[in-house]
Amino acid sequence: MSIENTPALPAHSREASFERGMEALTAIDGAGGQKVIDSLAVISPELGHQVVAWAFGEIYVRPGLAPRDRQLVTLGMLTALGGCEPQLEVHINAALNVGLTADEIVEALLHAAVYCGMPKALNATFVAKKVFSERGLLRAQAA
Amino acid sequence: MSIENTPALPAHSREASFERGMEALTAIDGAGGQKVIDSLAVISPELGHQVVAWAFGEIYVRPGLAPRDRQLVTLGMLTALGGCEPQLEVHINAALNVGLTADEIVEALLHAAVYCGMPKALNATFVAKKVFSERGLLRAQAA
Amino acid sequence: MSIENTPALPAHSREASFERGMEALTAIDGAGGQKVIDSLAVISPELGHQVVAWAFGEIYVRPGLAPRDRQLVTLGMLTALGGCEPQLEVHINAALNVGLTADEIVEALLHAAVYCGMPKALNATFVAKKVFSERGLLRAQAA
Amino acid sequence: MSIENTPALPAHSREASFERGMEALTAIDGAGGQKVIDSLAVISPELGHQVVAWAFGEIYVRPGLAPRDRQLVTLGMLTALGGCEPQLEVHINAALNVGLTADEIVEALLHAAVYCGMPKALNATFVAKKVFSERGLLRAQAA
Amino acid sequence: MSIENTPALPAHSREASFERGMEALTAIDGAGGQKVIDSLAVISPELGHQVVAWAFGEIYVRPGLAPRDRQLVTLGMLTALGGCEPQLEVHINAALNVGLTADEIVEALLHAAVYCGMPKALNATFVAKKVFSERGLLRAQAA
Amino acid sequence: MSIENTPALPAHSREASFERGMEALTAIDGAGGQKVIDSLAVISPELGHQVVAWAFGEIYVRPGLAPRDRQLVTLGMLTALGGCEPQLEVHINAALNVGLTADEIVEALLHAAVYCGMPKALNATFVAKKVFSERGLLRAQAA
Repeated sequence: MSIENTPALPAHSREASFERGMEALTAIDGAGGQKVIDSLAVISPELGHQVVAWAFGEIYVRPGLAPRDRQLVTLGMLTALGGCEPQLEVHINAALNVGLTADEIVEALLHAAVYCGMPKALNATFVAKKVFSERGLLRAQAA
Repeated sequence: MSIENTPALPAHSREASFERGMEALTAIDGAGGQKVIDSLAVISPELGHQVVAWAFGEIYVRPGLAPRDRQLVTLGMLTALGGCEPQLEVHINAALNVGLTADEIVEALLHAAVYCGMPKALNATFVAKKVFSERGLLRAQAA
Repeated sequence: MSIENTPALPAHSREASFERGMEALTAIDGAGGQKVIDSLAVISPELGHQVVAWAFGEIYVRPGLAPRDRQLVTLGMLTALGGCEPQLEVHINAALNVGLTADEIVEALLHAAVYCGMPKALNATFVAKKVFSERGLLRAQAA
Repeated sequence: MSIENTPALPAHSREASFERGMEALTAIDGAGGQKVIDSLAVISPELGHQVVAWAFGEIYVRPGLAPRDRQLVTLGMLTALGGCEPQLEVHINAALNVGLTADEIVEALLHAAVYCGMPKALNATFVAKKVFSERGLLRAQAA
Repeated sequence: MSIENTPALPAHSREASFERGMEALTAIDGAGGQKVIDSLAVISPELGHQVVAWAFGEIYVRPGLAPRDRQLVTLGMLTALGGCEPQLEVHINAALNVGLTADEIVEALLHAAVYCGMPKALNATFVAKKVFSERGLLRAQAA
Repeated sequence: MSIENTPALPAHSREASFERGMEALTAIDGAGGQKVIDSLAVISPELGHQVVAWAFGEIYVRPGLAPRDRQLVTLGMLTALGGCEPQLEVHINAALNVGLTADEIVEALLHAAVYCGMPKALNATFVAKKVFSERGLLRAQAA
């Protein structure tokens, strides 16, 4: 027996939103976003759809805030929420993809210590360490 | 040297509450609940006792809310709290045990995106994926 | 000088989603929901639109979870999040509107003490007290 | 029509726990605790009962941690949770009642800035300001 | 009797950090920041000192992230934390002071709905409404 | 290419604060604290500096609250925040180092159930179990 997710509502333009969102998702998150969507396919394809069609296709694509600025807000939120390390990993990659420098990201997470306290700033910084290490961006240790 | 937990208060009916709670815990959580209690035995048997005797023996057993409804509230709380993946695993199993369908659980976690945001909805959905996978409930991937 | 919110994206079916959502919002939240949307008009009409067209028009209307069950999950989330007393007020009203009894709501908030602790359970219960008082549902105090 | 809360479970020793808890509650929280219980009477007497009989009658009375130490832990938790200002007010009073000095409380909330960030430390400190003001404990402002 | 806060540690350069921080605080927060410091004088002057000398004098003044970018991160964090409406009020003013437009702020809080959920996005947007109203920045309502 | 963190501000007495903080950190956290600082060296040495020079060199060293009392507050905060298991591990060790007994720690985490709910109390207790196990402090299981 397998679950049968609730059938999607009669589509009116789900496809258009989804296409627009997928384009934005790919530009911003790269492979990381697509991997999340894929991993939802067997459990909650509608959640995957909404991440793409709503979060990216309705909100991210709006011209009112630059992609780089959206990631600054997002890094702040994910650090503050706590327990969102998988999403932080995706969005630290995204932040680099849309033009934030590694130094700006590190500085944003230092700034987070003022508002979220040291533990959450540390947790987020260690996620950045993992991402920067994978992308060859870690500073050389002082000899 | 080993710790010696504070001796229990003079019992007046700890046993009765505990027995009633253990019955409820077993009916709702199955093996998952008992495993948590067992793993507390060497560190905080009193916390184990209170989970059984108070949470289950005093609150869960009250007739004012159906077991199925209690799990809906619980799934909402655990998703919102964040960082409670071990408890979500126990309670997604519990939700299935008391009559929620896999589809209703998936839909409840999609609903959670509206109130808790996408990251927490995703974290909870991936816990559901693990539980459904272990219980053979995952939908077949579209070919 | 007044702010000029980012113009909406080229509509493809914003109206259809909005209409469907407004119908659901009215049925579930009654006047409370409409008041929130109205109060957003001068600051963030797009947020008002998304509450209606996405939260209600895309998620709430899905048949996979009964309206009553959605409110149980929602009460759990809002209690756990903390600081969401205005939304709790709307949704305790909504819960009554879709068929939960006052007693079931009180019991759900007692159940919340197990998972969120006493302070959040108390905060939510005092919101319920305000709503029930306005609707004439408070129990008569024992003489 | 008024709500009729779920009848209490067949009592086995609810009274004994309640009496013991009420004694502890009065000693620790003074009038503040009783006022919370009273205000629950018309909405959720069972929540009031559990605060007294369980939180105070089962946990607080345990000899394993001094009353003063319990309030230090409690101040930390309430500051970190956020949105629990009413409970902080009760427990800053309680902390003074069980022997913490005003200076120790202020210092504990300064310490909280390290772990919870400045906003939550500020929120808690302003609650302490209100309590200390009511009890005539505010330092004279430098002339 | 009045509390006597723990005497400050032997100063080594508290004054220098404080002066630098006060300059930054005034430039960024305007009157709002000073008011918070003043209101701490009778309860926790050291917390006031640390907000100025550490948060502003050590972190904010670092050149690694533009003031405007620091406010974007800060708005994200305060929205996500919840229960920080007083700080949001200060920082929405600050955001305007350092060059974010009202529209960018509104868009950032709409973006927050994706990551923090609707209730926290709504709470933050209503704080923005209050600030914009005080500064004459609200859009004229459609006639 | 490697990141080059923002150069430190013109030092005025960073060294003095750092030295004082490192002494405190070593006395309280033992090896655990130093390990965290070391692991920050290649990603955010300034965050490492601020943990030592500010959190320990400015706040922890203040005489207004005993080291033992600071850990009680800290255990409360870390349990309530959630998702801070790495920091809890450091601070349960620290609590033992500054004179709290294993039993007092276990009792503080039981007390946490009242204010944070069972899931967070359980998460923290399982971190204590790991630490006590490493330090040979677990109670012998009843035969």
